[in-house]
Amino acid sequence: MSERPGFASDNHAGVHAEVMDAVVAANAGHAAAYGGDPWTARAVERFREHFGPSARAFPVFNGTAANVLSLIALTQPWQAVVCARTAHLHVDECGAPERAGRKLLTVATPDGRLTPELIEPLLVRIGDEHAIQPRVISVAQSTELGTVYPPDAVAALADWAHSHGMLLHVDGSRLANAAASQGVPMRALTTDVGVDALSFGGTKIGLMGAEAVVLLRADLPDGFKYLRKQSMQLASKMRYISAQLDALLAGDLWRRAAEHANAMARRLADAVDGAPGLRITQPVEANAVFAILPPDATARLQEDWPFYVWDEATGEVRWMTAWDTSPDDVDAFAAQARAELSAAARPSP
Amino acid sequence: MSERPGFASDNHAGVHAEVMDAVVAANAGHAAAYGGDPWTARAVERFREHFGPSARAFPVFNGTAANVLSLIALTQPWQAVVCARTAHLHVDECGAPERAGRKLLTVATPDGRLTPELIEPLLVRIGDEHAIQPRVISVAQSTELGTVYPPDAVAALADWAHSHGMLLHVDGSRLANAAASQGVPMRALTTDVGVDALSFGGTKIGLMGAEAVVLLRADLPDGFKYLRKQSMQLASKMRYISAQLDALLAGDLWRRAAEHANAMARRLADAVDGAPGLRITQPVEANAVFAILPPDATARLQEDWPFYVWDEATGEVRWMTAWDTSPDDVDAFAAQARAELSAAARPSP
Amino acid sequence: MSERPGFASDNHAGVHAEVMDAVVAANAGHAAAYGGDPWTARAVERFREHFGPSARAFPVFNGTAANVLSLIALTQPWQAVVCARTAHLHVDECGAPERAGRKLLTVATPDGRLTPELIEPLLVRIGDEHAIQPRVISVAQSTELGTVYPPDAVAALADWAHSHGMLLHVDGSRLANAAASQGVPMRALTTDVGVDALSFGGTKIGLMGAEAVVLLRADLPDGFKYLRKQSMQLASKMRYISAQLDALLAGDLWRRAAEHANAMARRLADAVDGAPGLRITQPVEANAVFAILPPDATARLQEDWPFYVWDEATGEVRWMTAWDTSPDDVDAFAAQARAELSAAARPSP
Amino acid sequence: MSERPGFASDNHAGVHAEVMDAVVAANAGHAAAYGGDPWTARAVERFREHFGPSARAFPVFNGTAANVLSLIALTQPWQAVVCARTAHLHVDECGAPERAGRKLLTVATPDGRLTPELIEPLLVRIGDEHAIQPRVISVAQSTELGTVYPPDAVAALADWAHSHGMLLHVDGSRLANAAASQGVPMRALTTDVGVDALSFGGTKIGLMGAEAVVLLRADLPDGFKYLRKQSMQLASKMRYISAQLDALLAGDLWRRAAEHANAMARRLADAVDGAPGLRITQPVEANAVFAILPPDATARLQEDWPFYVWDEATGEVRWMTAWDTSPDDVDAFAAQARAELSAAARPSP
Repeated sequence: MSERPGFASDNHAGVHAEVMDAVVAANAGHAAAYGGDPWTARAVERFREHFGPSARAFPVFNGTAANVLSLIALTQPWQAVVCARTAHLHVDECGAPERAGRKLLTVATPDGRLTPELIEPLLVRIGDEHAIQPRVISVAQSTELGTVYPPDAVAALADWAHSHGMLLHVDGSRLANAAASQGVPMRALTTDVGVDALSFGGTKIGLMGAEAVVLLRADLPDGFKYLRKQSMQLASKMRYISAQLDALLAGDLWRRAAEHANAMARRLADAVDGAPGLRITQPVEANAVFAILPPDATARLQEDWPFYVWDEATGEVRWMTAWDTSPDDVDAFAAQARAELSAAARPSP
Repeated sequence: MSERPGFASDNHAGVHAEVMDAVVAANAGHAAAYGGDPWTARAVERFREHFGPSARAFPVFNGTAANVLSLIALTQPWQAVVCARTAHLHVDECGAPERAGRKLLTVATPDGRLTPELIEPLLVRIGDEHAIQPRVISVAQSTELGTVYPPDAVAALADWAHSHGMLLHVDGSRLANAAASQGVPMRALTTDVGVDALSFGGTKIGLMGAEAVVLLRADLPDGFKYLRKQSMQLASKMRYISAQLDALLAGDLWRRAAEHANAMARRLADAVDGAPGLRITQPVEANAVFAILPPDATARLQEDWPFYVWDEATGEVRWMTAWDTSPDDVDAFAAQARAELSAAARPSP
Repeated sequence: MSERPGFASDNHAGVHAEVMDAVVAANAGHAAAYGGDPWTARAVERFREHFGPSARAFPVFNGTAANVLSLIALTQPWQAVVCARTAHLHVDECGAPERAGRKLLTVATPDGRLTPELIEPLLVRIGDEHAIQPRVISVAQSTELGTVYPPDAVAALADWAHSHGMLLHVDGSRLANAAASQGVPMRALTTDVGVDALSFGGTKIGLMGAEAVVLLRADLPDGFKYLRKQSMQLASKMRYISAQLDALLAGDLWRRAAEHANAMARRLADAVDGAPGLRITQPVEANAVFAILPPDATARLQEDWPFYVWDEATGEVRWMTAWDTSPDDVDAFAAQARAELSAAARPSP
Repeated sequence: MSERPGFASDNHAGVHAEVMDAVVAANAGHAAAYGGDPWTARAVERFREHFGPSARAFPVFNGTAANVLSLIALTQPWQAVVCARTAHLHVDECGAPERAGRKLLTVATPDGRLTPELIEPLLVRIGDEHAIQPRVISVAQSTELGTVYPPDAVAALADWAHSHGMLLHVDGSRLANAAASQGVPMRALTTDVGVDALSFGGTKIGLMGAEAVVLLRADLPDGFKYLRKQSMQLASKMRYISAQLDALLAGDLWRRAAEHANAMARRLADAVDGAPGLRITQPVEANAVFAILPPDATARLQEDWPFYVWDEATGEVRWMTAWDTSPDDVDAFAAQARAELSAAARPSP
């Protein structure tokens, strides 16, 4: 019934066995609804273990919601969110932030990463009521282009944000990948370097469907529980969501799963690098490989392997690896890619 | 870890074993995300089997979303939704409909059920731009008071709505209970009697967390898929939600589960009826028993059994049964209730 | 070109000559836009003179906006506004508050006036995330039924609101009428008795079109200027609006205009009271008379005089007087009403 | 009391005498409120005269509202509006479109003008529910950079839009200037070339405060009157707004006023062109002159004359002329500018 494992997206992968076991185990009799259950209490505690004692975690259903609710919680309606022009928030949410009444200000970047220098020009009209007022910087970690922010880059953004009366949000739909990639705990990329709020992603790293808004600063306003309910994101039988988060965070599953996915991307990049006509376009720092190759080769590869063209204009493709990508599949795909590219490069007789 | 099974809510119950098996079975390799998977195709087909060939089903995460998205899809921003004053939509969604920009017009009812006669006075200002324009009637089936609408009552509402340029929506978070209670298929309460759109509820009848917006009329406008995404209700790994809906609807699980829950409510009502100082306040037509009893007795019962006081002012309580409520628990609870009530009624020496 | 002066609404009246003179006088060369002009500075100062040094006034275009913007400024999206079921906000704004994302909780009243006792039952679910959280009480002064709140009634509401973590807003579209009726300055009904924010109405008392949001408490959050702009209520050539407000508030025009309108309502009530088949249904405390009379008499009167039926079911009508209603018109109308009613009461031969 | 006439904005100018006379004349007794008056009937008819028999005009208070309401009326929430990156809509409305739930997709342009070629790349994801769906192209006429679209450029955009299932909206806050500049009637830039909806601007061309949404196509959906009311833009005493629009459109005031403003911009551009260190950066096609000059010279000029720096980074300034700009002021300003620039260019001794 399922499709051939490929490189389309890490959300094509299924649920890690340890997570499924936890979901099944949570199916034990009655439990209070809407988060009043012991699984949720434990998951919330896990977030404090990972992100510090001030972390307040609120499970939600998906990443769209984690991002949108985080940003609503951090802003007034006349305050804008600054993000990269390639941000998922901007290009892949069907206008969900705007539907919720928030304007995004986008910034072109070479590699999906924001810097204070890139953002600074947006601040020229602070106090001018005709201009939306920038309030939050939102960065994806890892980025939509498979790059990561090192801790000091995040710290620089946080410091700059705070010195300008702004806040820093991390869209962490792949935070585990970014942390594993750099060999640091997740708090080294968030709490420890001044991040104010986090969208924590679990689904792409082996959960069935579980994300969380994590407010990291103690002085953020209360009321988030109402916002979650009103925004249609309060799960009735929350225990089955919380059990997933608990399974991911209780031990080192988050790291194992992310390290594997990252290693597979590295393996794939290494295996195709140097093939004729192929150019890897972004640093491979998490679980994605971006490359430009001839459209013909792309088309033939897609007959056998699911993956997406990222930019029709340039022929750039995206190959995502997941927690369950097998080395054999990587090797088989890379071999086929090299073969297609070599054939294309050979002069026709 | 779990709480003592009681009568607090049908969403305190867990997941039916057949459903959990289906979720586990869906965990087979890779599958396209966002509903492009075979489980979702099958679930969508199940809805057509149950609700007719025009039914377009869109899985969403929870009941709040099923209701709010249905209503947005059926209205313009200047059009109102008419509902009972006791409607979940009005009293238990933390203003989610209004946050989405829709006004509710509420109507007092004796038993949670709307009728054309009750709604008619709201139509006096059609065409007057100062007045919100009523467009949708939303009825809960079964109602929040445990009563049901028979098919002809639904038909009367639908006919009346259509003859006044309005539409009929069913909040079917407990539609299975209403259908089982009356021994009819679910379409007898919806498609066959003119209902335009349905919020289909699965969570309370044994799913882990799966509901659906079902557009029943072929001539409703397109675009719902965008609305779902933008409203943060498009599941990434949708197969795990669709597998639940498929399990519920493929055979007769929906009916078995609902019949059991309903029977337990009936059993409970019969067992306490006539106890001194207790009065059953609503017809027991689905899986809820509403009763008024002395606050002291309520307080002592709550020490052992979870359930909610519905109305502090009158002492009315709500006892919900679920797909997994055991006859033994019903009997034990009823016996304890009778004992408390008899003790309270005995003259002090 | 204009219609016969009648009793339809105080906004059918034109612009007071002193106001029109001020508008014409403001047409002097160039002036900074968006409120950076001297007329606006002066109008804002007038509000401080009337409402105390903490009053921050923001001119807006109309009463709908003054109310909606006030309420958004005082609430989070998950907080509700409590108002009378007859409130203009609820029945005559085409859902503007809900379109802006705020839920109203309505309370039935005998005479359009809220009291703490009427509101108290709404507070049973504070802290429950499933329930919208009441945050603001909004009262109309004078009410939509032509009654007024005396200072101590406002004080009682304000004290009760504050002791429950709530705020008090006054919809003062006819505040001048209410103050004039009671012989008190407008601050005796607002600032001095604990009101937090005010929609100040000028249009109905002789302006061309000018209202203001007035934040009365110094500790209300900043940012209103952005909210006004974003809500499409920042006037480009604001001087022409501010000049109207200045003309109304600089001297005693507000009081003269209101006293006249009130006196005309009193005169009308006195003139028709006791006529056969007519019953005055509300205390005549401002510039409205509510009465029930036979529909036939109403229909014949409407042939000659514009006015509205308030309640088709009971035959209740509303007669509004304005700053320019003439005693002669009142007398002529009352005479005609008495004649119609007497004719109707006479037994047919 | 007023400021020195300068070149800050055309909304610093006052009200044309013919318009003020019309406002005063409208102050004649009672009139029905909310647009039920004869002045509004006449203004609506004037729009039909100018824009054809299908034109449905709805007066509103300001340009922000005219734009936002037009765009809401033309789109579903999941549909985007395409505009130039310099559009007022994007940079000067404090996020009003997004607050109303609509996302803008912005396009960089050399001169404020969109073309089909610039927009085409935005259409790559039609039908993809993750991507907001482009639905309306909004162009400003004249543009924010003082350039105009000729009729055939508008026609090309309209044709392209319609052939892609899209609509064309004109932000006509300075439509009169654009038409006068090209010697064509306003319908030659709108109705005759396929424009679907128009924000008609009156305030900047000599009105006190009056704009209109004009739906040009007969097949646009109904319901706009509710949207206007709900969006807080229905004027109570509308006659005073409609009388302004009538005065502007009844004869040729719109053209006289626009021609004068345009001529003053031309005169200014001619007078400063060639001054040392000054470069005119945009074609002068309406009532604005954009120029880069040394910041020192700008600063000294601003001591005597109000005007805005458009781009701090490049030193570009904007000089707007108005219906009442005097040739003497233009000449005096230009002379002073040339003097400052010559002094700055002279080598220090």
